Amino acid sequence: MKHTISVLVENKFGVLARISGLFSARGFNMSSLAVGETEDPDISRMTIVVEGDDKTLEQIKKQLNKLIDIIKVVDYKEGAFLDRELILIKVSVTPENRKDLLEAVESVGGRIENAGTKSLSIEVTGDQTKIRTLLELVRPFGILEIVRTGRIAMDMTDKGLKAEGKPEVNE
Amino acid sequence: MKHTISVLVENKFGVLARISGLFSARGFNMSSLAVGETEDPDISRMTIVVEGDDKTLEQIKKQLNKLIDIIKVVDYKEGAFLDRELILIKVSVTPENRKDLLEAVESVGGRIENAGTKSLSIEVTGDQTKIRTLLELVRPFGILEIVRTGRIAMDMTDKGLKAEGKPEVNE
Repeated sequence: MKHTISVLVENKFGVLARISGLFSARGFNMSSLAVGETEDPDISRMTIVVEGDDKTLEQIKKQLNKLIDIIKVVDYKEGAFLDRELILIKVSVTPENRKDLLEAVESVGGRIENAGTKSLSIEVTGDQTKIRTLLELVRPFGILEIVRTGRIAMDMTDKGLKAEGKPEVNE
Repeated sequence: MKHTISVLVENKFGVLARISGLFSARGFNMSSLAVGETEDPDISRMTIVVEGDDKTLEQIKKQLNKLIDIIKVVDYKEGAFLDRELILIKVSVTPENRKDLLEAVESVGGRIENAGTKSLSIEVTGDQTKIRTLLELVRPFGILEIVRTGRIAMDMTDKGLKAEGKPEVNE
């Protein structure tokens, strides 16, 4: 089973090395990882998708919480959060099947971001189901290249995920 | 200066720990990192944004190429590639300013992905300029939470970025 967790970390040297070292040493497998800036230049946010049962997840959370530089660990439950990923796909195209490919891309709300004579580069954003659908639709044309961001997640409450002790904006 | 590099890696245990350990040990700073699956289940692709001059970049590429499990390192040059990031932003909203916020979001092609009574969650995908613009437009309303994927990149040729020795699809 896949779990999605968000980790707020102090933007300090070596923090990623410590976290990935922990995963590696304990035998936890990351399916994807996205690390980006937050509004606070001292804090980064990692979204990690991990495979494992509930017991594994509990161990991971416990170990992460022990690490210095980790401010907060949040575990998202299926269905109760926005689950998004961005993917760029370069697909082979011929004059004959160009129209079919464009229709397939449009049907899932994808966008053509670059058009070459022999390839189209497609961007799509969505949950895992939407991305899987697009991949299945374009696979018969010939996938040349894929870049994925890994999943990011945000809860659906009115509250922001903030570091404790840090002031919330406009509250 | 920020550089964007893509790294194809064998999907083996501990590869992220080795790469982040290398960055940490050498004092190279990652601005963002996105790790996602590729079409080949044995290969993952990392997009790393690093800060530093050209000399630093050369050192990073050289060190990465020495690591086992690294298949390919590609350095993207500004302007010649698709540069995309996905960001989710939760923004405070009141009945009075709701319309203004919706207009601001629409003006940069953002989408409302969740609407609460006191907040709107916005999704936007684009290059760094577009994302900066959205952030500036919504900041006065009060940003509650930000999640970013980190940047991904794809070149604009008709060729796919593939591991050497691996067959290209449909070629």
